[in-house]
Amino acid sequence: MVRHRHGELSPRSMKTFMAASPSVQWSNGIGGHLRLLDQTLLPLQEHWLDCFTVEQVWEAIRMLRVRGAPAIGIAAAYGVCVALRTNAGETLDQTRNQARQAIDYLATSRPTAVNLFWALDRMRACLDKSDTDVDALRESMLAEARAIHEEDRAMCHAIGKFGATLLQDGWGVLTHCNAGGLATAEYGTALSAFFTAQDQGKKIHVYADETRPLLQGARLTAWELHQRKVECTLICDSMAAQVMREGKIQAVIVGADRITSRGDAANKIGTYSVAILAKYHQIPFYVAAPTSTFDMKIRDGAEIPIEQRSPQEVTQGFGVRTAPEGIDVYNPAFDVTPAELITGIITERGIITPVNENNIRSITGLN
Amino acid sequence: MVRHRHGELSPRSMKTFMAASPSVQWSNGIGGHLRLLDQTLLPLQEHWLDCFTVEQVWEAIRMLRVRGAPAIGIAAAYGVCVALRTNAGETLDQTRNQARQAIDYLATSRPTAVNLFWALDRMRACLDKSDTDVDALRESMLAEARAIHEEDRAMCHAIGKFGATLLQDGWGVLTHCNAGGLATAEYGTALSAFFTAQDQGKKIHVYADETRPLLQGARLTAWELHQRKVECTLICDSMAAQVMREGKIQAVIVGADRITSRGDAANKIGTYSVAILAKYHQIPFYVAAPTSTFDMKIRDGAEIPIEQRSPQEVTQGFGVRTAPEGIDVYNPAFDVTPAELITGIITERGIITPVNENNIRSITGLN
Repeated sequence: MVRHRHGELSPRSMKTFMAASPSVQWSNGIGGHLRLLDQTLLPLQEHWLDCFTVEQVWEAIRMLRVRGAPAIGIAAAYGVCVALRTNAGETLDQTRNQARQAIDYLATSRPTAVNLFWALDRMRACLDKSDTDVDALRESMLAEARAIHEEDRAMCHAIGKFGATLLQDGWGVLTHCNAGGLATAEYGTALSAFFTAQDQGKKIHVYADETRPLLQGARLTAWELHQRKVECTLICDSMAAQVMREGKIQAVIVGADRITSRGDAANKIGTYSVAILAKYHQIPFYVAAPTSTFDMKIRDGAEIPIEQRSPQEVTQGFGVRTAPEGIDVYNPAFDVTPAELITGIITERGIITPVNENNIRSITGLN
Repeated sequence: MVRHRHGELSPRSMKTFMAASPSVQWSNGIGGHLRLLDQTLLPLQEHWLDCFTVEQVWEAIRMLRVRGAPAIGIAAAYGVCVALRTNAGETLDQTRNQARQAIDYLATSRPTAVNLFWALDRMRACLDKSDTDVDALRESMLAEARAIHEEDRAMCHAIGKFGATLLQDGWGVLTHCNAGGLATAEYGTALSAFFTAQDQGKKIHVYADETRPLLQGARLTAWELHQRKVECTLICDSMAAQVMREGKIQAVIVGADRITSRGDAANKIGTYSVAILAKYHQIPFYVAAPTSTFDMKIRDGAEIPIEQRSPQEVTQGFGVRTAPEGIDVYNPAFDVTPAELITGIITERGIITPVNENNIRSITGLN
């Protein structure tokens, strides 16, 4: 990560810096602060939040200014360090208490975010280590937050390296929703393959589905690709088949929220549709996700409950009502792509292909 | 069509009346006026325009208040009658001149609308008939406009009757874009099958794709179905595959803008995608269109040029910008579904199935 003193930057160079920088950053050492790219304002504004209090971090997580499971975990871990930034002169017990309060408080920001609890549990375990003074404790806590951050970054880059081996110079690729760097420490999962291919000198043209109803493709994926100067064309979800028919797509890579032991993959609504279209056009369809995404207790994707979301996302998703009052709406948040439609699953430990239970266990090491 | 004196209606009963009425209406006999449902205000407002001058009709066509090829033709034909509504006391030559001026003027409202010219040509031919007095001429002209209207209505109902034979009580059906009554004299093409099935006492549940980028499904199809009390659920285009997977869809019916001699069908972007998804789920996929939609000079759908539309429809289709500035956008207006994916084509002369050149020629009578 590039280190930086922001006060010295003109607005223009600031923008260049942001273009290549992760959405969650710790500024300087102990006594530093947390910087978050406010994702609620993208793509129209690139506004960075400087968080000097735990309350600011809590609000940023709660209001989805930082979103994406890994990014939330990283922000929360640094959030505990924010609580300890001005602890000079306090006792070790006082400092530990302050950290515990921050952990309990931050855990209330998003009650269903598994990564949030996982990261805060790591920070809590670190507290119980035998540091002998306040500064050593503060150093340990910051080191743990940085480790969480660094592990996620390394995982994203490992996925990207495996993914890039599947892509050839000059290819057109398609993705759905946002499995990018904004949601992670850096580079993301599906997008990491594209960014890594570009780093290797391969020219890749990405077609980004806008991803109704919440338009993560238009708002976030298009923005990330544009920032990193990866060639990108935005399309409506209904245009993916036509773009494939025209021969513009050589591979599809998407993310995943949960993968079963046989390889059925839950992801943003519309992913299953893209997988069928890819199969019809004989285009390889890949899922990129860390091994932590696998839920080996579930075998069949049909067992994954599909969250239903508010009708308003469909009928007035843009602040303007675009459907008649009183109309019935079906708005599933996810769908499940069966393993048969998935050419391979790209993890940080290797590519699982063909997708079946044996290969999943052997590559991931999960039981 | 229900005849009506509007002055006697309360706002509430007025709404009930509108719910079942065509979007283009002539009110009373010669000396009457043209009533148009302003489609630009749907689905938020149901506003009827009363046109007493040719200028009002011209403006309504120009501003897309009346849209859909058949509906535009019908409105233009009645527009000529509007020009003659106050001709009592003028000479036969004066009246003919006034009609000719109206025809020439109305032809300038939408320079590329084939149905507009076709309808106005019929009105012009009628002018040259040997009527002996002004009132007889006015009666002839109104009779011709009504014939154009009635022929379209009969055609829609014939398509609906053939289409309804394909639908069973209790079925779920899916449609894309709007091939409904708003664009025609009544009932439309694809939607006519649903309305006719309902008239026959079959219960049908329609899933309407919202149809990005311009949302004709959300704005118009959902509105029409809701008005006529056909059970309707609005979905995003990306959800069609999931709804099919859940077993909710037993047939798909869509409209068409142009069909080749071998049966490749051009229709709103996203139709081709739905056809592939239907095939994957083994759901029959039908196209409903009048025989006038066939272009027998073209055999292969690849010969149909695909219109590219403004990027703004995708990046700020709702008045709000939802994608980064400077992003590349691909926005084809149509796609072409190859004959192999179409189970049958429903015309006013019968159902073409399987779809091939021989069957097309034999059912339509076209060469």
